[in-house]
Amino acid sequence: MTLSITALKNIPLIKPGDDLAGMILNALNASDLALDNGDIIVLAQKIVSKSENQLVNLATVQPSAEAVALSEKSGKDPRLAELILRESNEILRTRMGSVIVEHRLGFVCANAGIDHSNVAGDGSATEDWVLLLPNNPDQSALDIRTKLEKASGKQIGVMIIDSHGRAWRMGTVGVAIGYAGVPGLVDERGWKDLFGYTLQITVVATADELAAAASLVMGQASEGIPAVHVRGFPYPLRNSSMSELIRPRDQDMFR
Amino acid sequence: MTLSITALKNIPLIKPGDDLAGMILNALNASDLALDNGDIIVLAQKIVSKSENQLVNLATVQPSAEAVALSEKSGKDPRLAELILRESNEILRTRMGSVIVEHRLGFVCANAGIDHSNVAGDGSATEDWVLLLPNNPDQSALDIRTKLEKASGKQIGVMIIDSHGRAWRMGTVGVAIGYAGVPGLVDERGWKDLFGYTLQITVVATADELAAAASLVMGQASEGIPAVHVRGFPYPLRNSSMSELIRPRDQDMFR
Repeated sequence: MTLSITALKNIPLIKPGDDLAGMILNALNASDLALDNGDIIVLAQKIVSKSENQLVNLATVQPSAEAVALSEKSGKDPRLAELILRESNEILRTRMGSVIVEHRLGFVCANAGIDHSNVAGDGSATEDWVLLLPNNPDQSALDIRTKLEKASGKQIGVMIIDSHGRAWRMGTVGVAIGYAGVPGLVDERGWKDLFGYTLQITVVATADELAAAASLVMGQASEGIPAVHVRGFPYPLRNSSMSELIRPRDQDMFR
Repeated sequence: MTLSITALKNIPLIKPGDDLAGMILNALNASDLALDNGDIIVLAQKIVSKSENQLVNLATVQPSAEAVALSEKSGKDPRLAELILRESNEILRTRMGSVIVEHRLGFVCANAGIDHSNVAGDGSATEDWVLLLPNNPDQSALDIRTKLEKASGKQIGVMIIDSHGRAWRMGTVGVAIGYAGVPGLVDERGWKDLFGYTLQITVVATADELAAAASLVMGQASEGIPAVHVRGFPYPLRNSSMSELIRPRDQDMFR
């Protein structure tokens, strides 16, 4: 059994309104890849957000008093601090250079996932534009999946990923922020191990494991590989939602 | 560019003293795979620990008063609680069913990584045996790497992984607990993005991303795939140590 993750190198720079599904189909063609049942397309958050015009020009943002306070504590531009507040349910920790939040989408991440780099609102480069996460990444994934399935006649999964830091460990890893068809969790509790014992705690975050794998292939930012094709994912695809991966607050010992 | 992760299905049940490197070479042969420069072998912690005889019979463990107290708070067998204490630098959180520790190896994990399932001290199955993590996983990986490189004449990486729960997100993911040749972190700070901006925070935990990918292929415990072969890892191999991945306590906002 082999899991294969292939970079789709022919995705052009994405602009608001672009048809991502069509671009993915073109890129697959150019790579001599045809979608098959069980395949998964993994997309970097940036291209989904850009295609959905989640760009904001900081010049249009009026910081609140709360944002000014957050800016002083974090060193972030007060207008960016305002957007972080708007995009978050709760601020968990603030240090100089770093604001850790519960995003409105439910997961915990730094700076509400708002990104400065690679952003150009009108196609040009400017430091005043930032990029918010997609409004509803599960829905974005589902929309793209529907188009790809219609075009290919195959049943596939689509996942959108971002890079998050972690508690306790250095470095970022790819994590899922939305998906359609990809199982978020696979519950292996109750399965027997090789000696017939019932396994204790084995709920595997399969979507996040795949996100990390895809992130490895997207790899170096300078090469700009925003989409990969996955074949050999070892679990059945099914209807799914990002909510599976979000630990309920009252079960979280590290909030 | 394709990253390929292939299950090595011909690894027999491991007993203390077994020659893992030899078994991996046999399994590669049986899968018609020959090691090439840049390949990585990823091993499940369990087979490394078993081959190193990290098995402990709970009947031989005398719980301390501290262990009895931890047992009452966590619901763990007091003898297991004693081993958790011995294997840990610090207990971070305790709840019924769950003890989160800083392991003596430096990383944060549940129950000091001590495992009940699949364990048989004398080859038979018994509930009284548990399995500790390898004494020094970096060294274990280096020893196996040295043997595999000598046998193959190729420069490769070896990594040992376990499954860890996370703060904030549901489910476990594969993470590195030791490696040789595999870059723990790749620092992309200072690289230019597509518009020439300098990227801000991009230190990627490449070893953990690969661990998650490998864990996906090892997958379902009932199938027992304890080793995988990786080809197409997109970063250069180099000398490395697990210490790269451990966040210093004073930089950790969630301890």
